[in-house]
Amino acid sequence: MKKILKHVDSNMNNLVSELQTLIRQPSISAKNEGLEKCAQLVKKTLQKAGIRSQILRLGKNIPPLVYGELRSKKNPKKTLLFYNHYDVQPVEPLDLWESPPFSAKVKGNKVFGRGSADDKGELITRIKAVESYLKIKGDVPCNIKFVIEGEEEVGSPHIEKYLKKFKKKFLCQGIIWEFGHVDSKNRPIVGLGMKGLLFVELISKESIRDAHSSLAVLIKNPAWRLIEAVKSLRDSNGRILIKDWYKEVRPLTKTDLKIIKAEPFDDAAFKKEFGIKSFVGHKKGFEAKKALVSGATCNVAGFVSGYVEKGVKTVLPAKALVKIDFRLVPDMDPTQQAQRLKKHLKKKGFGDLKVKIHHGVAAARISSSNPFVSQVKNAADESYGQSILNVSNAGTGPMHSFVKILGAPCISIGSTYMFSRIHSPNEFARIDLLKKATKCICLIMDKFGKN
Amino acid sequence: MKKILKHVDSNMNNLVSELQTLIRQPSISAKNEGLEKCAQLVKKTLQKAGIRSQILRLGKNIPPLVYGELRSKKNPKKTLLFYNHYDVQPVEPLDLWESPPFSAKVKGNKVFGRGSADDKGELITRIKAVESYLKIKGDVPCNIKFVIEGEEEVGSPHIEKYLKKFKKKFLCQGIIWEFGHVDSKNRPIVGLGMKGLLFVELISKESIRDAHSSLAVLIKNPAWRLIEAVKSLRDSNGRILIKDWYKEVRPLTKTDLKIIKAEPFDDAAFKKEFGIKSFVGHKKGFEAKKALVSGATCNVAGFVSGYVEKGVKTVLPAKALVKIDFRLVPDMDPTQQAQRLKKHLKKKGFGDLKVKIHHGVAAARISSSNPFVSQVKNAADESYGQSILNVSNAGTGPMHSFVKILGAPCISIGSTYMFSRIHSPNEFARIDLLKKATKCICLIMDKFGKN
Repeated sequence: MKKILKHVDSNMNNLVSELQTLIRQPSISAKNEGLEKCAQLVKKTLQKAGIRSQILRLGKNIPPLVYGELRSKKNPKKTLLFYNHYDVQPVEPLDLWESPPFSAKVKGNKVFGRGSADDKGELITRIKAVESYLKIKGDVPCNIKFVIEGEEEVGSPHIEKYLKKFKKKFLCQGIIWEFGHVDSKNRPIVGLGMKGLLFVELISKESIRDAHSSLAVLIKNPAWRLIEAVKSLRDSNGRILIKDWYKEVRPLTKTDLKIIKAEPFDDAAFKKEFGIKSFVGHKKGFEAKKALVSGATCNVAGFVSGYVEKGVKTVLPAKALVKIDFRLVPDMDPTQQAQRLKKHLKKKGFGDLKVKIHHGVAAARISSSNPFVSQVKNAADESYGQSILNVSNAGTGPMHSFVKILGAPCISIGSTYMFSRIHSPNEFARIDLLKKATKCICLIMDKFGKN
Repeated sequence: MKKILKHVDSNMNNLVSELQTLIRQPSISAKNEGLEKCAQLVKKTLQKAGIRSQILRLGKNIPPLVYGELRSKKNPKKTLLFYNHYDVQPVEPLDLWESPPFSAKVKGNKVFGRGSADDKGELITRIKAVESYLKIKGDVPCNIKFVIEGEEEVGSPHIEKYLKKFKKKFLCQGIIWEFGHVDSKNRPIVGLGMKGLLFVELISKESIRDAHSSLAVLIKNPAWRLIEAVKSLRDSNGRILIKDWYKEVRPLTKTDLKIIKAEPFDDAAFKKEFGIKSFVGHKKGFEAKKALVSGATCNVAGFVSGYVEKGVKTVLPAKALVKIDFRLVPDMDPTQQAQRLKKHLKKKGFGDLKVKIHHGVAAARISSSNPFVSQVKNAADESYGQSILNVSNAGTGPMHSFVKILGAPCISIGSTYMFSRIHSPNEFARIDLLKKATKCICLIMDKFGKN
């Protein structure tokens, strides 16, 4: 094992250079930009590492999935699956980037660029861990599978179909999730769950054209109507006012609450990082941690109407649009929640608004008593010195589909520094953490293979 | 009088040709384009008509004002002032113009071009009315003054300063406003007022950067905060909820109500034009007309926050911005209303929002019993066959500054066909209305001079 970890150490320049190559290939799923090219690049990267790789497809207009497989000679009965994605978030606002988002600039301990952390940085640690094992041992301690999709940043609309269609190919006994955060004290988070998401768009249209605002005495303002509709969804402490919204919420277990209590959380550092003075609803300490793990939200992700450039324009807009994302927790059902939202709007007099459901993903949360948990936790402790158990990530991914379809436990562990500005300008990955994560994956493979 | 009106008739080719010359000189105040040249051209046009003219200035970077004066030999004690502007709106979108915006193409009864109606068309009728009087009588029935500014289309930021500095020069007993609309049945509107305007921008900032929306359990959303703040300003029927907002509202007089009742208004045609089914607060007929004349509004002119492009982005925005225009009615004071708005926001817990006051203009409304009203109304009836009294235009202009500083009543009457596409591509003036307006101005001078 030592030799393998040493190989990781001596191979970091190569890891960074391959990460740069991946970053330099834009792959913005929201704009369908560069996806095919990036999938081919990822396939090549897997093959170069000694992993058999192929492009899987569902249909012509659906971004392909890159599949990788490596059988263990010694232990062909156990399979570990790595889930990652090759697509990235849009880069706007462009003017806030200090170096171009796809230039992959390295500065000291950091690799900058869109996708550097989320998720190309995570992907490369896994590929390189497998490569190091192969280089030193000529074998891997368990079968390895890679499932690398291209639509994670737009809500993985087809991952469930991929999982269903290629279920046999993907079967495994453990899944390592696409990312894992590392806190400000270099402790990785061993995550046992993900929240769900319901992303919707509401559109209000009144007049057939923009009008002079002097006519606001008579013509209804669609921005006003959206403001009223959106305001009816949530109180100012963040509690969602839609009927039965919280009905199916699975309560936290005693062990869950213990894990939450044990989790470190630096209120002050968090606030400083974002330049804020207080949290929503004046939450503190344990309450703040509990909210991150199990809080449902109704977030305005975007709102636009009328004239928003510099200066004055007395216009009465014809149209207004809002994008809202609801974070869901176990066991809310996205389809049912969408229906509740529509019912609420109708009841409150906003039945005329156009409601577009972009997508819904259910939350997932595995039991803390599953043996896979201690394997991953021990590997993380060895590689990073210490690690933190977390009942559920505050974010969303299609973890529910993996757990449900493949019937295997899923844990997130990775290299992403928690303030690495994912989804924001100047996203970066820390090279020291990329190294630790790569070693951690080697150790997980080892422990998982032995048990 | 007949001879004068006949001179107007026979002189229309000349009027149209001078209007074309004015249109061909671009003068876009929003872009500071051609203003100085246009001011010189207007000065020359006045002088050619026999009106003494000079360029007045406030400072180096402020567009000049063109002043014109003609003393009456017979009646030097009464003065009528024409307020106009030589600047025009920008021409974008250029591709929608059927002929170039400054080509001043004449087609049948129409003169096309930016400024053809607003306001060069109105200006030329007034100059030509004075010229006809002079040509036939060798005198005018009262002193005539012209105040022609170059910043009306950007909100007349310096007109009050001009009025104060040149108050003595501008003193008069009656003011004719820069425009007047003519409805689809060729009835000119004799307007006795204009609403005021308070244009503000509210900015909410929470985090110092956009964050992943999973953090919405803890970080406040600035769009949410603006939605809550804006929602607190107005109920869903349009009534403004800011304390004392309506305190100084001058009630409509019995005569005002009679005038409103007599005003024609086609609910169905209005709704069809804008493709709407009902008015704000389910107003109908008289209530709708009353709202146009005397309704205060709180209109969302623009709102932007977060991701508003196509598709999905789970972002928690760092900033949100709303632009609001409040139409004011007599005797609301814009400065006081701005203070009330700020106080309201503070009281409701939104004291942290940045409030930017773009500008404030008070409303003006002269008494319908003022003798100037019947002089203008009678002149309009004679020239157009019939006319419509209107207590106040729904829009805003600096009428209050004129009335307050010069201490004279002000009425709007003119030649602008209500569908003449002012501020839009393919703006035009109707030659038949230019003729009627010119005659109307001759008749106003006559009646005003006699009384």
